[in-house]
Amino acid sequence: MLTDLGTPAGQVPLAADRAQTARRVLKSARTPESALMPADRVPPWLAEQARRGEYRVTPVPFAMLRGWDFEESGGNLRHESGRFFSVEGLHVLADALPAPGWRQPIIVQPEVGLLGIVAREIDGVLHFLMQAKMEPGNVNAFQLSPTVQATRSNFTGVHRGRGIPFLDLFLERGRSRVLVDVLQSEQADWFLAKRNRNMIVEIDEDVDTGEEFRWLTLGQLLRLLRRDNVVNMDSRSVLACLPTAGGDPEQDPDPAAAAVLRSFHDPAAPSVNGMTDIHSWLTGIRALRELDQRRVPLREVAEDGWRFSGTEIGHDSGRRFRVIGADVAASNREVGSWTQPMIQPQVPGLMALIVKRIRGTLHALVQARVDVGHLNVAELAPTVHCRPADHVGPGSEPFPPYLMDVLTAPRRRLRYDAVQSEEGGRFYHAANRYAVVEAPDDFPEQPPADYAWLTFAQLTELMAHGNYLNVELRTLVVCAYALH
Amino acid sequence: MLTDLGTPAGQVPLAADRAQTARRVLKSARTPESALMPADRVPPWLAEQARRGEYRVTPVPFAMLRGWDFEESGGNLRHESGRFFSVEGLHVLADALPAPGWRQPIIVQPEVGLLGIVAREIDGVLHFLMQAKMEPGNVNAFQLSPTVQATRSNFTGVHRGRGIPFLDLFLERGRSRVLVDVLQSEQADWFLAKRNRNMIVEIDEDVDTGEEFRWLTLGQLLRLLRRDNVVNMDSRSVLACLPTAGGDPEQDPDPAAAAVLRSFHDPAAPSVNGMTDIHSWLTGIRALRELDQRRVPLREVAEDGWRFSGTEIGHDSGRRFRVIGADVAASNREVGSWTQPMIQPQVPGLMALIVKRIRGTLHALVQARVDVGHLNVAELAPTVHCRPADHVGPGSEPFPPYLMDVLTAPRRRLRYDAVQSEEGGRFYHAANRYAVVEAPDDFPEQPPADYAWLTFAQLTELMAHGNYLNVELRTLVVCAYALH
Repeated sequence: MLTDLGTPAGQVPLAADRAQTARRVLKSARTPESALMPADRVPPWLAEQARRGEYRVTPVPFAMLRGWDFEESGGNLRHESGRFFSVEGLHVLADALPAPGWRQPIIVQPEVGLLGIVAREIDGVLHFLMQAKMEPGNVNAFQLSPTVQATRSNFTGVHRGRGIPFLDLFLERGRSRVLVDVLQSEQADWFLAKRNRNMIVEIDEDVDTGEEFRWLTLGQLLRLLRRDNVVNMDSRSVLACLPTAGGDPEQDPDPAAAAVLRSFHDPAAPSVNGMTDIHSWLTGIRALRELDQRRVPLREVAEDGWRFSGTEIGHDSGRRFRVIGADVAASNREVGSWTQPMIQPQVPGLMALIVKRIRGTLHALVQARVDVGHLNVAELAPTVHCRPADHVGPGSEPFPPYLMDVLTAPRRRLRYDAVQSEEGGRFYHAANRYAVVEAPDDFPEQPPADYAWLTFAQLTELMAHGNYLNVELRTLVVCAYALH
Repeated sequence: MLTDLGTPAGQVPLAADRAQTARRVLKSARTPESALMPADRVPPWLAEQARRGEYRVTPVPFAMLRGWDFEESGGNLRHESGRFFSVEGLHVLADALPAPGWRQPIIVQPEVGLLGIVAREIDGVLHFLMQAKMEPGNVNAFQLSPTVQATRSNFTGVHRGRGIPFLDLFLERGRSRVLVDVLQSEQADWFLAKRNRNMIVEIDEDVDTGEEFRWLTLGQLLRLLRRDNVVNMDSRSVLACLPTAGGDPEQDPDPAAAAVLRSFHDPAAPSVNGMTDIHSWLTGIRALRELDQRRVPLREVAEDGWRFSGTEIGHDSGRRFRVIGADVAASNREVGSWTQPMIQPQVPGLMALIVKRIRGTLHALVQARVDVGHLNVAELAPTVHCRPADHVGPGSEPFPPYLMDVLTAPRRRLRYDAVQSEEGGRFYHAANRYAVVEAPDDFPEQPPADYAWLTFAQLTELMAHGNYLNVELRTLVVCAYALH
């Protein structure tokens, strides 16, 4: 037994009332512009950050990774310090797989990172302090990231990096007020049970932010989310966790607008399923599906079609992903240059959420999805969560439900459609298409067993806890917020 | 990716409104007797069940286990079918352990079992259908168990057992109304991330129950909980998940009684911490503590002081637990006789919850505990969760916080004090002392960092989700319910 470990975590902090926070969040969402920094100036500002610094990302053979080696015994790819992360093998047994299961490479990172946004009320409106940050995997280098984005290794010093600005506001008691603090999952086909701590803390006093940070309202961030590759995955994940409430849909003469407001801001809105229904449905899937995960030596994945070369580990089928090495130089990161393994997907994904007005409330059709790296068997995922190219050609899997509905949806039904990057610290040029598709009136309301209609307030309520919504669905919840 | 697994889990079922269920639960709790079966007749009825059947549990050498073998490679103790469970090695790295961590035997059971209670309103009061069930590990053979207590192997036929009564009410849609449905954890020092599905479903029509089942009110079950070893662990776990609300503390002239009512039944009662505080505190501990678990061959645990003989696997120190073999014969179980490995603790545990009236509301002092088998790093645990004998004598660990407060508490402060059994299907003669201790007025209200004061309504709210309260704390929440 590991009782009484003692030191960290501190005392229970001063937190804000969730309903009150929700009302202030809505006001910020309805503030599409701020005197401090017009939203349209954000992309040029990000480009300027890129010009100010030197940065360069080069795929390199594994032999050129400094401090990283394939272990003698088993062949796991690890850092000599034992920290950061490792690429290992995962043996998965699950209902959908052949009896012996399959083995694949997976990123193992038991450390929980911190994704933290500092908030402050400026002129009566909540603003969020966003950072222009270079991530090696980004197609465009700089995107808007949380105020603090750090692995535990970053801040416990193994990284030997410079001090991380604003970290103390998240880790020290009494420096700020907690608005959001929850562990959320990351990509489950590449990570084994990875979670990050998603935090928003509020301060009352102004702070010196410097050139790499800007205060933006939620309304501005929602506008920027309509563009490709501006708001990074970590920011989307944290913002998705903001509580919602306090809208007044009865005041809105437009039924479509009222349906959105009601869905996001009224937990008691008419809904297809009550929360007890929803919990029971998900519990049933988690209880009856089989998902047995076992870490195995990386070398063993060769027996399931993975090929090792000096420059990559990829699958014979040409599908899935590749593990590669990268050499990164960046003048404005804590550490000026480094090398690391990265995951590169072979083809882009499509993450689409079908929404429909039912009983006057906008509902989202979500699936309970079982994925190889899940901590808790199943999480709620977008209606369509796949890589379309994997479903054509010889040896491909059949089309998943609703993929054709999304691919053939007329443009006017695409309420949101943009390309967004996945985490640029581990994934190289991983960008997915994210879409919110409004279903036609005759769209069937009775879904297959693994799918259910939820309101956005119900999704938001679940996000007060970890491992209910996967990271792709969290992104789509924020994107849908922009429907207001 | 494991999308579209297809079949089970069914459609979203008809569930009951949580607040309304809570009011009906309170009414049942306030019904201390029922015409159907007086509470005092339950222990003789359990004894009668024992006399009616033949049963016998005999510790046997591992070589006499039928169908169970230590694998050639690695030495894991497994069933030839590959089902049920296995005893494997677990290598744990955590903050509190020496740098290389430690290895210990652990039960691995990826299957989620079902613990289900059928409820029905009789004469306007909710009754719960309890089963007299023999479990091989129980000191007294028969205890009150849920209506259905089954592993997935039981009901998918590997066990080749007889049909399980009432199972269809839980697994088939439309047969019942869901009141509770949540995955909860089990003992984390013996199980790796084990969860069971805790369910309560309500039916409207009478059913034929037979000799092994009885309808009891919650009030009767709370009275029976005051006795040693009558209500089994699975029953306690399921009953703990019942929602609470709807009490009217303002009507109660006794401040102590009002404080209990307010704590259980008023989510908005004055409390030391708000829910956002509580989430942030637990998230901080889960994020900052290290817990890295890796399944290793059972044979490897020998390197950390575990000794293998023909009859047991035990630790050199004489502490912790032993793995043994058992031969079981029972005329009234689905399978008449079988053999299986079991875990036998070396000494009994003490699970104690310190409670105190603060701001007119009864608060419970809980710890966020990191344990070897946890799925999610830390769960809330009783104030004291230990085996006292492990903290005396040479080489013992220091006394954990609050142990001395509990051991020296005068009898009048022991609001609850009984011996209860842990799960009798895996654990042999595992019985712990459970106590609810009322703190004196001068008891310090500022706890160490890993401890916090919660109201019972807050604990109940968390139990709508899995992996927040460990099984020992869930037992104590039900025991404290009996303070009404």
